[in-house]
Amino acid sequence: MKRIFEVDPWHVISHELVPTDKRLQESMTSIGNGYMGMRGMFEEHYSNDTLKGIYLGGVWYPDKTRVGWWKNGYPAYFGKVINAVNFIKINLTIDGDQVDLAKDEISDFTLDLDMHTGILHRSFIVNKNGKRIQFDIDRFVSVAQKELFDVHYNVHNLSEEPVQIGFISQIDADVFNEDANYDEQFWQVLDKSHAVTGGSMIAETKPNDFGTPRFTLGMQMLHKTELQGANAPETEKAVTNIFRGTLAPDETTTFEKRVIVVTSRDYEDVPALRNGLAQISEQVTAQSYADLRQAHADLWAKRWELADVAIGGDDAAQQGIRFNLFQLFSTYYGEDSRLNLGPKGFTGEKYGGATYWDTEAFGVPFYLSLAKPKVTENLLEYRYNQLDGAYHNAQMQGLDGALFPMVTFNGIECHNEWEITFEEIHRNGSMAYAIFNYTRYTGDDTYLKTKGIDVLTGISRFWADRVHFSERKQQYMIHGVTGPNEYENNVNNNWYTNFMARWTLEYTLASLKLVDADKREALGISAAELAKWQDIVDRMYFPHDDDLGIFVQNDTYLDKDLKPVSSIPVDQRPINQNWSWDKILRSPYIKQADVLQGIYYFMDDFTHDQKKANFDFYEPLTVHESSLSPAVHAILAADLHYEDKAVEMYARTARLDLDNYNNDTVDGLHITSMTGSWLAIVQGFAGMRVRDDTLSFAPFVPKQWEHYQFHVNFRGRLLKVTVDQQGSTVDLISGKPLTIELNGQPVALTSPVTA
Amino acid sequence: MKRIFEVDPWHVISHELVPTDKRLQESMTSIGNGYMGMRGMFEEHYSNDTLKGIYLGGVWYPDKTRVGWWKNGYPAYFGKVINAVNFIKINLTIDGDQVDLAKDEISDFTLDLDMHTGILHRSFIVNKNGKRIQFDIDRFVSVAQKELFDVHYNVHNLSEEPVQIGFISQIDADVFNEDANYDEQFWQVLDKSHAVTGGSMIAETKPNDFGTPRFTLGMQMLHKTELQGANAPETEKAVTNIFRGTLAPDETTTFEKRVIVVTSRDYEDVPALRNGLAQISEQVTAQSYADLRQAHADLWAKRWELADVAIGGDDAAQQGIRFNLFQLFSTYYGEDSRLNLGPKGFTGEKYGGATYWDTEAFGVPFYLSLAKPKVTENLLEYRYNQLDGAYHNAQMQGLDGALFPMVTFNGIECHNEWEITFEEIHRNGSMAYAIFNYTRYTGDDTYLKTKGIDVLTGISRFWADRVHFSERKQQYMIHGVTGPNEYENNVNNNWYTNFMARWTLEYTLASLKLVDADKREALGISAAELAKWQDIVDRMYFPHDDDLGIFVQNDTYLDKDLKPVSSIPVDQRPINQNWSWDKILRSPYIKQADVLQGIYYFMDDFTHDQKKANFDFYEPLTVHESSLSPAVHAILAADLHYEDKAVEMYARTARLDLDNYNNDTVDGLHITSMTGSWLAIVQGFAGMRVRDDTLSFAPFVPKQWEHYQFHVNFRGRLLKVTVDQQGSTVDLISGKPLTIELNGQPVALTSPVTA
Repeated sequence: MKRIFEVDPWHVISHELVPTDKRLQESMTSIGNGYMGMRGMFEEHYSNDTLKGIYLGGVWYPDKTRVGWWKNGYPAYFGKVINAVNFIKINLTIDGDQVDLAKDEISDFTLDLDMHTGILHRSFIVNKNGKRIQFDIDRFVSVAQKELFDVHYNVHNLSEEPVQIGFISQIDADVFNEDANYDEQFWQVLDKSHAVTGGSMIAETKPNDFGTPRFTLGMQMLHKTELQGANAPETEKAVTNIFRGTLAPDETTTFEKRVIVVTSRDYEDVPALRNGLAQISEQVTAQSYADLRQAHADLWAKRWELADVAIGGDDAAQQGIRFNLFQLFSTYYGEDSRLNLGPKGFTGEKYGGATYWDTEAFGVPFYLSLAKPKVTENLLEYRYNQLDGAYHNAQMQGLDGALFPMVTFNGIECHNEWEITFEEIHRNGSMAYAIFNYTRYTGDDTYLKTKGIDVLTGISRFWADRVHFSERKQQYMIHGVTGPNEYENNVNNNWYTNFMARWTLEYTLASLKLVDADKREALGISAAELAKWQDIVDRMYFPHDDDLGIFVQNDTYLDKDLKPVSSIPVDQRPINQNWSWDKILRSPYIKQADVLQGIYYFMDDFTHDQKKANFDFYEPLTVHESSLSPAVHAILAADLHYEDKAVEMYARTARLDLDNYNNDTVDGLHITSMTGSWLAIVQGFAGMRVRDDTLSFAPFVPKQWEHYQFHVNFRGRLLKVTVDQQGSTVDLISGKPLTIELNGQPVALTSPVTA
Repeated sequence: MKRIFEVDPWHVISHELVPTDKRLQESMTSIGNGYMGMRGMFEEHYSNDTLKGIYLGGVWYPDKTRVGWWKNGYPAYFGKVINAVNFIKINLTIDGDQVDLAKDEISDFTLDLDMHTGILHRSFIVNKNGKRIQFDIDRFVSVAQKELFDVHYNVHNLSEEPVQIGFISQIDADVFNEDANYDEQFWQVLDKSHAVTGGSMIAETKPNDFGTPRFTLGMQMLHKTELQGANAPETEKAVTNIFRGTLAPDETTTFEKRVIVVTSRDYEDVPALRNGLAQISEQVTAQSYADLRQAHADLWAKRWELADVAIGGDDAAQQGIRFNLFQLFSTYYGEDSRLNLGPKGFTGEKYGGATYWDTEAFGVPFYLSLAKPKVTENLLEYRYNQLDGAYHNAQMQGLDGALFPMVTFNGIECHNEWEITFEEIHRNGSMAYAIFNYTRYTGDDTYLKTKGIDVLTGISRFWADRVHFSERKQQYMIHGVTGPNEYENNVNNNWYTNFMARWTLEYTLASLKLVDADKREALGISAAELAKWQDIVDRMYFPHDDDLGIFVQNDTYLDKDLKPVSSIPVDQRPINQNWSWDKILRSPYIKQADVLQGIYYFMDDFTHDQKKANFDFYEPLTVHESSLSPAVHAILAADLHYEDKAVEMYARTARLDLDNYNNDTVDGLHITSMTGSWLAIVQGFAGMRVRDDTLSFAPFVPKQWEHYQFHVNFRGRLLKVTVDQQGSTVDLISGKPLTIELNGQPVALTSPVTA
């Protein structure tokens, strides 16, 4: 654990610039607007260690796969979030000398991410050549105008003498991905223009051998300042604008750099892209800084009105949940169905890909409650649109049907670890579950009947081919899988995977009865296919242990040396940083919920005794070394009235990045697991469920807290749930009357109250 | 299958130069003398595809490990056989123009590896600039003087006019390994000398980050020719000598290039190495080409006297077995206990490392019969000398004792696939078995008691820590292994692994009773340790099936879809080139003997019914896609009197490379599996065993053959075994009288007969 920012309910704020923590600081002060985003690195020159990262949603590059030993079926490329052309770059000069924030004397440093407005503020005084200059800098990527990056400098001469100040503002295509497999650069400059007030550049991704689309990027700098523009040297990979001026003692000036960033994702061709760039630039030029800033901040305020979680009596918990909501909304707010929740959002390069099964397992329930149904539908549609890729992936393994990828941009699998790529096929189950979850929450089966059924059919076909029939046991089995617990690989009959496979087949069979005849025909499912699916449903094998009353994680799990996690010496935790992979695999230790993930998904389908027996057996064997683990355990613990355990689990999710729990936040934030803290509060502490079209709550408040309050969207209503030590209330903020269930009792919410 | 050489009992010969088969041709015409060797690439310029490879035994480089995804416990480097400085290079000129054997018109081409003499002969006519010049070229690496490479040209002017001929002879350090992980070069030039008659170079491997030794190479060219030496240009990475002369029509001349190659493996420091290089050069210079050649050929003839296998009635089989013996002896003839049997010998770069468990499993029984006991002892000692590395490897996995590596040069594991590196631990069993096998064959337990016991103790300590006790089953188990069948990974209780673990513990316990008190004390084995070992021996778990009467390959193997190999469509074979890795893993198909490997090792410990039931069950499920598989099956089939099956299996080993069965001989030869064809004949067809200090045979002759004859060494005797359709005889060629068993009857061999 390492806490480098102050505890504050609405701010991520620090007054120290510690070089060894620079990358960590950058990760934590990342901002984004769903369309683009960036780490909190400086615009200005900083010659110490830093990870510069600017990312554009959906813009990627197929980097040649790197492996030690090739396995048949591996994908040819690994799709990589690529570091965009560096369009935020600004070199400062004082009396003609370049400022280096790593070497020059800096004082009065403040770094402050205001989560309420989505603006990153920095201020510092540079002491150079006997001069003292104060800089106050605000940066945002507008949620009102997605193509707009804006950074605004206030410069104040604190010296006794005049000082010449210079801004060398650039768009620089000489960028690298730190995680490039073969140290290649991914961008090339198509053309540049060098207007004195603001240059522009068109860049494109280099050709690739894999037939994936190339991306074009158009960037226009717009500068607003009273400083004088000067001629700038032309370089091959950069466009430069220079502005200079002299400040008298105590004089102040401002410098604003706006960059309009358009991509070929939104335009038919390069001329259209140029035209779009020009049009947006014109619109944005016409507006004042104050207006642009206000429009952005207003939309963030609106988001908070709909989604804020307030916690009384625990500022650290309060900051944690807001930070998570802020970063999730910065990553994805549902505007673009071609995008998804990347594992690091716009905060780092690691892991590549645009989407993991995290989206369906942990993202969908979050967006279902905090955004309009269309947002979640967009997430579902993302997979629907990639169904061809999923069929391709199954075919790569010699199988029928659709296998959704572990990691992808375009639906084609791009991950290359056989035990994950080929074997962690339970991911397919979450794709089906998300359709069920959406339909259950919204009460609207239109998506299911029109598009979801195509996805379900593809997945069912995969399962039906992936199982095999064991003559010896006279049951269907699934061999060679990795369950959600990635600390076991290539196991047979992972209970969760078998369960999700059977459930998908059952749900598909049931859903097919709802779709109209035309659709059924278009799906082309034969009677033999249906009979096979039903046979698998009827004769699927599940490992279980009657003595223990548990579902067994996989065939030989109970043969292991089943000592609890508490028996591991503290200095050997986390085991993934201290043990060989071999030792981890042979151990009984579970990285994240596995059997319990299945029970969480279908909580109401299991008896209290079943839930209790499995939780009591598996939780003590679980090391929670996946950021996705604690939330599920918090929710199940709350369901079992293990309140202390629920709170303990919540604490592990809420400030994971703020306190750098896993010691890897330098690489970027754990975006997808950030939903976990919200789920732990809402589905855990407040016990929110949807049963038979009724929303229900059964809340408790952690002993350490005074109260908490959150909002949920449910079928056109906005509800506010308030829980304190005395009890809980649910208020209807907007929408039609609704009867909910609170602690087992129906409560009619008849008319909206003021928020 | 692809046969590009003619069938001939003593020659590998072709009259065609086919550019698309060039690499295949090069692999098959590799030569070596145990100390160094090379592929059959040309000395001369050849601008088409070629894989130049010259290798020096024990000279390697630690190439940075390349992986897609790092696992804890992976080694930092992959030890690579490195392509030596190219000291054989010769550019020919005709009237000053460089000859390019890929572009110039070549006729009357012959490529002929004479296996009896170990000399590679080439001849061709170059038609260039209206001239016709015939070249006859002989190359060998001397088995009489290990440091000597010799190439001898006979040049004949067939033109009507005089022709100026030139030889540009080089030592060139500008070489690459095709399989370098990061495209780096591994050699740097330390210094060069430029004498007109023969330059020399000292080169060394580049510094590395891994603390492994650097190698220095000293090379001295000695040229014998009547052509005139000329000044040669100096270049950074090469030493060059140029010789020119004019041949009148029909005139002939000769050009001989000798290179003396010494390495730091044999010298204390660079001055000593220079001194050694000078001394050997002086000795060699004094000798005539004829003498050098004869000394080399004589020693090869001697090898054949001791080891030849003659087959009557099947020239292809005859050529196959001789080719295998030739290449095995070229790779390793037992002179240097620091060396071992590399998987590709001196014929290619692939796989890296100097030794695999192949040596102990398939190499030791071969050398036991075909060389003095000291040779096999050297092989055993190689592991003894690397025991520290084996302890290190176990420690990397958090385990006690010694784990011998999958791939290594120095005892430290350098392979990096978790399912192999960490899990294919059965290799440890073969290290122990080789000690047993050596002791049984030689009847001498000195090695066992002095050094072998240290190895056995280390391995037993590993097994004792690697097993775990299953509370549920009240038995010891071994989870998370890959057996010899690499088409299943991370299985539990692989029968073979469990069997070898228990056997090692038993054998160690028994052997400890033989060693003297001092040694026992030095080993420091506590009473508790002995008791634990005995407990594991007593309570080891073995999967078995009483109905089928078989040992089960691993815990859930019988749950698989057990269709025989014959059900796989022919166009999907071999499955490793047609199926995804995922599909292979889930299939029941076995790459190479697994349960049957254990039965082969301890053939006399199983009943006929046990052998039959297991063979009948497993063989139909075995695809034999490892070159190590067929031999074991041939031997077992012969033991079960399945003669046709034995012959079928033999056929798959004998010409594996000659007929490019696996379509990968371009990369180099399958050296270690070459012992398989010999084992199939001797232990299979001839049924050779050692039981209670008695050598026994129970031969049959394949229907397709007239007869076969082979030699074996046994306890100081050389025996000749002759088998034909009428029966079999065993003759004592040299050594004291001996009683053997032939077809169950004792036969006294009283006095040597003439060979």
